[in-house]
Amino acid sequence: MPINLSLDVVSLTMTLVNIESVSHQEGPLADEVERVLRELPHLSVERFGNTVVARTELGLPERVVLAGHFDTVPLNGNLPGYVEMGKLFGLGACDMKGGVAIILRLAAMGSYDRDVTFVLYDAEEVAAEHNGLGKLAEARPDLLRADFAILMEPSDGAVEAGCQGTMRVRVTVPGERAHSARSWVGVNAIHRAGELLRKLAEHEPRQPVIDGLTYHEGLNAVFVEGGVAGNVIPDSCVLTVNYRFAPDRSEAEAEAFLREFFAGYAVEVTDSAPGALPGLDQPAAKAFLAATGAAVRPKFGWTDVARFTVLGVPAVNYGPGDPLLAHKQEEYVPTAQLTECEHVLKEWLQA
Amino acid sequence: MPINLSLDVVSLTMTLVNIESVSHQEGPLADEVERVLRELPHLSVERFGNTVVARTELGLPERVVLAGHFDTVPLNGNLPGYVEMGKLFGLGACDMKGGVAIILRLAAMGSYDRDVTFVLYDAEEVAAEHNGLGKLAEARPDLLRADFAILMEPSDGAVEAGCQGTMRVRVTVPGERAHSARSWVGVNAIHRAGELLRKLAEHEPRQPVIDGLTYHEGLNAVFVEGGVAGNVIPDSCVLTVNYRFAPDRSEAEAEAFLREFFAGYAVEVTDSAPGALPGLDQPAAKAFLAATGAAVRPKFGWTDVARFTVLGVPAVNYGPGDPLLAHKQEEYVPTAQLTECEHVLKEWLQA
Repeated sequence: MPINLSLDVVSLTMTLVNIESVSHQEGPLADEVERVLRELPHLSVERFGNTVVARTELGLPERVVLAGHFDTVPLNGNLPGYVEMGKLFGLGACDMKGGVAIILRLAAMGSYDRDVTFVLYDAEEVAAEHNGLGKLAEARPDLLRADFAILMEPSDGAVEAGCQGTMRVRVTVPGERAHSARSWVGVNAIHRAGELLRKLAEHEPRQPVIDGLTYHEGLNAVFVEGGVAGNVIPDSCVLTVNYRFAPDRSEAEAEAFLREFFAGYAVEVTDSAPGALPGLDQPAAKAFLAATGAAVRPKFGWTDVARFTVLGVPAVNYGPGDPLLAHKQEEYVPTAQLTECEHVLKEWLQA
Repeated sequence: MPINLSLDVVSLTMTLVNIESVSHQEGPLADEVERVLRELPHLSVERFGNTVVARTELGLPERVVLAGHFDTVPLNGNLPGYVEMGKLFGLGACDMKGGVAIILRLAAMGSYDRDVTFVLYDAEEVAAEHNGLGKLAEARPDLLRADFAILMEPSDGAVEAGCQGTMRVRVTVPGERAHSARSWVGVNAIHRAGELLRKLAEHEPRQPVIDGLTYHEGLNAVFVEGGVAGNVIPDSCVLTVNYRFAPDRSEAEAEAFLREFFAGYAVEVTDSAPGALPGLDQPAAKAFLAATGAAVRPKFGWTDVARFTVLGVPAVNYGPGDPLLAHKQEEYVPTAQLTECEHVLKEWLQA
């Protein structure tokens, strides 16, 4: 079905929902989006794989990015879409073709008081290595430079600012092997791990306030593994611990905290991603918050906004749809939220 | 090489060492032992697979069992055997062809003040289901009935009495799954398991005194396993706990203890074997201890003596060779211990 940018945002969302674009199969949707954006004379369009970037070049003092992903989780008997009682149902309606529809409507608008970069990317719902925004940030960071970025992930029309970092470490508790019939000859590593688990259970996570937002850290064993044989006192027990840290801590600070917390044990960092500061003190962000009038919440999970922060661009999540419905068979987006979000962003961007 | 029962015990041990009998390949040795025992008119001999049972039928008021296994662990470049500086080296020299040689020498003796049942069985060094003594106890318990039994496993010439029981349980600690970015919404099962591990670490095992012997229990986590994914608060953590219990507790009592210890958690018994009381108050046992004059120690590990206890027969381990050398490439048996053990048992059994 061809995309028609003169449709209202609800009809446009329906069109997008009905163009299947499960991760790694975004080609047809990207083709169609590229085609309609290239028809707009005020935009310069570039294509990278199944990622499409369209920019205004008005020479305005500020530039903002509006970004969204094309892909959805796999089909689950939830296509084609339909509207019922003010809700648009269908695969990707919530996560995040409603957001993509708004981006396309804004791209077609044609008159802006800020320069805008529209980024529509692939492979957000699969392993990070495939992420189209990540690839773009690496290959062409110049295209993402801006004063502010909005990722239009479903946030129920609220603004989710910043995001927490995440780090995983393997903590190895040693012991001494022995036959379990003479257990007192050995040192039970699993029993020793009990002390660390108790320390984790008793740990009070930090809840720092940053730019007026209260973050909430988490420090949790996500795996534990130990044991040699049913009749052997185990000489090793390995905890995998996931630390979700507020964006006032760098990865280096997070690692230092973990090494101190587990002092005396071997600690190996296996995985890490930095947090993102909310950056709500930037003029473009302030103007945006004023325009939306929406509630601002901290984002606890890691999201693609951190990719902008790495580039020095403050970023928030703001989009239609309840995030708790994302990836569900019965996902939907309220049609009123589509209209409301589009209106808010138009007001903010319009000259 | 044919077995000659008129050889001295050291030479006979050497003959036995040089007849390979790795587990499941005991046939040639069992054939040769059966042949020489059938030549002795004072014994009635029966064969079951590769297990050979020879009995005196003198109508004496007491009957004792002498038992040993034919099989060895796999070859490890340690055949043929040789004697050096009073030590007989070679595969199985310690575990337990020295003991088998003594049994055969006693079987050839011909005059006894107690009826004797000589049991030589296969497949002791492999999974319990193959154990020749276990199979015999199940198929023909009548052949194992006696007032006392001696398993001639290497015990360095000391008497190891009774044995501890063993029970394994799986203890499941539940939790509530949540995304680790919002860990406070869930309940971390691995963290909760820390309480149980601390309880295990702090547990003071019983050391009951039975028939003058001090046993030593053990209660140990031998496996721990938990975790769903690197970003999920785990909703389950499973401990596998091995309880080694003194022989004054039955399996039912051991299970009751574990269920109370882990009260509030799901406990599943996966594996269990009863202990064996030392039974040193039996007349035959007393006479044996008086004859040996050897030190008596409790046996902490589970051994085949428990198979006799299940049949109501008190049993001990008593044999030549250092048990710590069993299964080692360089295993040996001191020739003086062979002679000493043979002498002690002859004194005890001779009319």
